[in-house]
Amino acid sequence: MIATKGYAAQRVNAELAPWNFERRELDAHDVQIEILFCGVCHTDIHFTRDTWFPGIYPMVPGHEIVGIIKAVGPQAHKFTIGDYAGVGTMVDSCRECADCKSGHENFCEQQVVYTYNGVGKDGQVTYGGYADNIVVHEDFAFRISDQLDLAATAPLLCAGITMYSPLRKWKVGNGHKLAIVGLGGLGHMGVKFGLALGAEVTVISTSASKEASANQLGAHHFIVSKDEAQMKSVFHSFDFIIDTVSADHDIHPYIGLLKTNGTYINVGLPAKPWEISSFSVVVGNKAITGSGSGGLQETQDMLDFCAEHNIVSDIELIDIKNINEAFERMEKGDVRYRFVIDMATL
Amino acid sequence: MIATKGYAAQRVNAELAPWNFERRELDAHDVQIEILFCGVCHTDIHFTRDTWFPGIYPMVPGHEIVGIIKAVGPQAHKFTIGDYAGVGTMVDSCRECADCKSGHENFCEQQVVYTYNGVGKDGQVTYGGYADNIVVHEDFAFRISDQLDLAATAPLLCAGITMYSPLRKWKVGNGHKLAIVGLGGLGHMGVKFGLALGAEVTVISTSASKEASANQLGAHHFIVSKDEAQMKSVFHSFDFIIDTVSADHDIHPYIGLLKTNGTYINVGLPAKPWEISSFSVVVGNKAITGSGSGGLQETQDMLDFCAEHNIVSDIELIDIKNINEAFERMEKGDVRYRFVIDMATL
Repeated sequence: MIATKGYAAQRVNAELAPWNFERRELDAHDVQIEILFCGVCHTDIHFTRDTWFPGIYPMVPGHEIVGIIKAVGPQAHKFTIGDYAGVGTMVDSCRECADCKSGHENFCEQQVVYTYNGVGKDGQVTYGGYADNIVVHEDFAFRISDQLDLAATAPLLCAGITMYSPLRKWKVGNGHKLAIVGLGGLGHMGVKFGLALGAEVTVISTSASKEASANQLGAHHFIVSKDEAQMKSVFHSFDFIIDTVSADHDIHPYIGLLKTNGTYINVGLPAKPWEISSFSVVVGNKAITGSGSGGLQETQDMLDFCAEHNIVSDIELIDIKNINEAFERMEKGDVRYRFVIDMATL
Repeated sequence: MIATKGYAAQRVNAELAPWNFERRELDAHDVQIEILFCGVCHTDIHFTRDTWFPGIYPMVPGHEIVGIIKAVGPQAHKFTIGDYAGVGTMVDSCRECADCKSGHENFCEQQVVYTYNGVGKDGQVTYGGYADNIVVHEDFAFRISDQLDLAATAPLLCAGITMYSPLRKWKVGNGHKLAIVGLGGLGHMGVKFGLALGAEVTVISTSASKEASANQLGAHHFIVSKDEAQMKSVFHSFDFIIDTVSADHDIHPYIGLLKTNGTYINVGLPAKPWEISSFSVVVGNKAITGSGSGGLQETQDMLDFCAEHNIVSDIELIDIKNINEAFERMEKGDVRYRFVIDMATL
């Protein structure tokens, strides 16, 4: 076993604190990654607070992992020691179901193994990237370009693919009007990808104070969702809306902003069910859809796309000792746009 | 003005009874159609009972109209006297908005003029097809093949296009597993179109008694929605589900039957809002959408497709004096699959 240092929540709602644990020895196809940076995702808050379902404790969060290959198993040929590599939200899947075979390992019918707060096929609990290393099957590690800022690359592994996947599935691009609702870790990646794909991008936020940030990111337009006149001015005008807001909210106002045949895409996963009138989708042939993370191949495609278009996340690099304060600030929306832990501080 | 005989509801919930009224004289681009047959759509029940919104009375229902061109305006060149022609759910639109210009006149941003229970641009109330004739702009009259049974063609003008439009928008065809929920006027057209487009078609019904009818229509499979084991057997298996049921019901069980990237299409327009969990669409990138009728060009395309594939509705031809009994029977689901009024009985 490999002695590992990390930060864990010992029980639900507990503050994160140093914790030593063990990683498995490398299997034939495994690689060991020395973790350099790990992004702080809203899921890390949801999971350590059991918002979505009861968690497994102690819990080591973190699924936006970037580092350097430190060791490779005897039959692992994808990486060489010293390569940069990343790990996202999953570390295993069945590889045999229709979803796995069609590149949707994230929806594996046998249950995908989450990078943390999951149980591997060996029956062992998985621990995430708030740690000095991780051991993972090489197929679930991604190649990372050495042309991009490494720390700012970490959030691509979850926030990046979460926004990239629906944009590509729905073929968003030139000639499309795209609205991004919420300008946080997900939203700001949506703006960057939307622009790179050639869409006309509007940021919609509850807070007028985000306008300068939206402009800085290059968004073409900005709308305050609480301003009725502004909302009316973009009625029936968008081809696509990606809603990144995780707080409960009525989505009908956004459906009204869609053109005929327009598509509303939820990635924010609010906890409370929506009340939706059938008329809101029948009139105008509109679609309400969602998107959850992405598969292995599309995650690598996204990373390659980012390298080609020089896209990374805008981040605030933090000392791991400040992780609990970072959680608090995230809950207040006080981060532009993603905290990334510098693992050298561990 | 043109003296016209029809059947009308004099007030909400009133029985339909004979009523004489007037049609406008033909404008330059108008045609007058002698109505031979008119289908009886569920909308006729909804509208005469104010289910969706307050109606305009007296109300002459009927928007599945087939007949013979009897007169043409001086600048109407689409038809010759004696041609077969049809009218569907709308008789006018602005022709200038983005929706009209892109073939979605049914969603005209200035408000489409319904064939009945609407108000035309001239400020006059519109009256539908339970009548001996109708006057309409030639653009809103469709060419009808003389190769198809005329009476059985009438329901294509609403039930037909309502099912055809989403099947074509979503490119349903060969290699797709398609489920049709509800085997009534809409559902049976969905089965016919799905088969003609090459899909593998499953009928899902609350009633086991519909199995023989589903088989007779050529459906490949039949599932009773109230049978948990049967529903489980098709879990995660459909590319598309078209739900034709207008009664309120939970749609989550159907979302569960969709494959990853699958699409649920509502055309039944239940009155009560759905409660939908964001997780149900995010996990599996599923889409909940709807479809309402169709535009002018796609309605003509549908009629041409029907002529080519020898598709009509399965109907029960009725005397107009039995229209109130027909409404009652429809509410009990006692019709296979569409009543059509023989206007010779008027």
